[in-house]
Amino acid sequence: MTGTAYGLGVGPGDPDLITVKALRVLRDAPVLAYPAPDRGEATARTIVAPHLPGTQTEIPIRMPMVASRFPAREVYDWAARELAAHLASGRDVAVLCEGDPFFYGSFLYLFARLAEQHRVEVVPGVSSLTACAAVLGAPLASRDDVLCVVPATLDASALRAAIAGVDAAAIIKVGRHLDKVIGVLEELELADRARYVEHATMASERCLDLTATRRRGAPYFSMILVHKRGQAWR
Amino acid sequence: MTGTAYGLGVGPGDPDLITVKALRVLRDAPVLAYPAPDRGEATARTIVAPHLPGTQTEIPIRMPMVASRFPAREVYDWAARELAAHLASGRDVAVLCEGDPFFYGSFLYLFARLAEQHRVEVVPGVSSLTACAAVLGAPLASRDDVLCVVPATLDASALRAAIAGVDAAAIIKVGRHLDKVIGVLEELELADRARYVEHATMASERCLDLTATRRRGAPYFSMILVHKRGQAWR
Repeated sequence: MTGTAYGLGVGPGDPDLITVKALRVLRDAPVLAYPAPDRGEATARTIVAPHLPGTQTEIPIRMPMVASRFPAREVYDWAARELAAHLASGRDVAVLCEGDPFFYGSFLYLFARLAEQHRVEVVPGVSSLTACAAVLGAPLASRDDVLCVVPATLDASALRAAIAGVDAAAIIKVGRHLDKVIGVLEELELADRARYVEHATMASERCLDLTATRRRGAPYFSMILVHKRGQAWR
Repeated sequence: MTGTAYGLGVGPGDPDLITVKALRVLRDAPVLAYPAPDRGEATARTIVAPHLPGTQTEIPIRMPMVASRFPAREVYDWAARELAAHLASGRDVAVLCEGDPFFYGSFLYLFARLAEQHRVEVVPGVSSLTACAAVLGAPLASRDDVLCVVPATLDASALRAAIAGVDAAAIIKVGRHLDKVIGVLEELELADRARYVEHATMASERCLDLTATRRRGAPYFSMILVHKRGQAWR
């Protein structure tokens, strides 16, 4: 019997926002793998730490933080070979994914390398999208709304085009793109309808207004939600 | 002490795709409320049924299925009064929401009526968006992708406009709008990159190609995912 590779959505940060199914897979898998920075702690590993029995083999997939080389093919090729060896020996491998594996996650690079020759199952998770809305007390979308998810990494004109036509937008991965994003929102006269949150559901969670955010700067795990009708659902 | 109203995301269908946090709130709340059809079973109640101790007060919020009257203000006004009475008496109320409360859910109508005068907490859930992607084995979006969530209820030109400019689209609530949606996808030459799933993660889950779907028709809980690069992530 060969093993199964699980793309395991561990949720947005609060360890209790993992699903019952993911928790079972997490505890039963003999091998865990997770994306990790060059040095230091891996976010996905930190999220599930309270649930771990401490007896599992762990494979940190350490990614050099050099933007120009992303995705680092060699690292994923190496990781896929490591995982494949465990699978061939009949061991299940749980790949820990922040939020949901298929929502802007790096899991797809492993999925692409493993899915043809191995059994791969994706366990969906609570994404940052709905976690941020919950924390902000701001409904994302309803009824006939068009909701767009827009990475802040786009240039200003692409951001403007993506946000201009829709009812609601979630601008993700704000980080060092904060000033550009605020500029676009101001141009579109949407800044007063925008809400900012970082590290939603983690201990370091913060909701700030855009002016205060601009002074502080934003980390990578941050999001701005905008709804054109503002709080019209009230 | 007054009670707390929880908007409780119960996940997309598989009872084990509820979060650990939502499960705890679900079991501890003395009162459960949930949207329900005129007669028959409520989907959100069915999803959590295996987890219920059977000792809780239940308030089905029965909505007449007359499209023209939606949202039925009187029903939500009534439900908000019922819930408020429990909250004032110090009883927590868990409002069960399919998927996530703030992702195209009807919870926002209760939220709008309760949030100013009562403590309301939203527990995010796994949405149909990520559940459908998991079931289809189709990554939703990655890196700089713009992902648009588009209700199939829009007319053909609005659908076309929403889908035309983005990298990936999730067309939700397909149901009786199936032919219109397929027509738009064919016009945009995206039909061969579209994947269809209904009742994702439920016992009645089915993935079909568009031709087979067209013959059968689609239920309300159905989704079509499209990515312009197809399987370019492979």
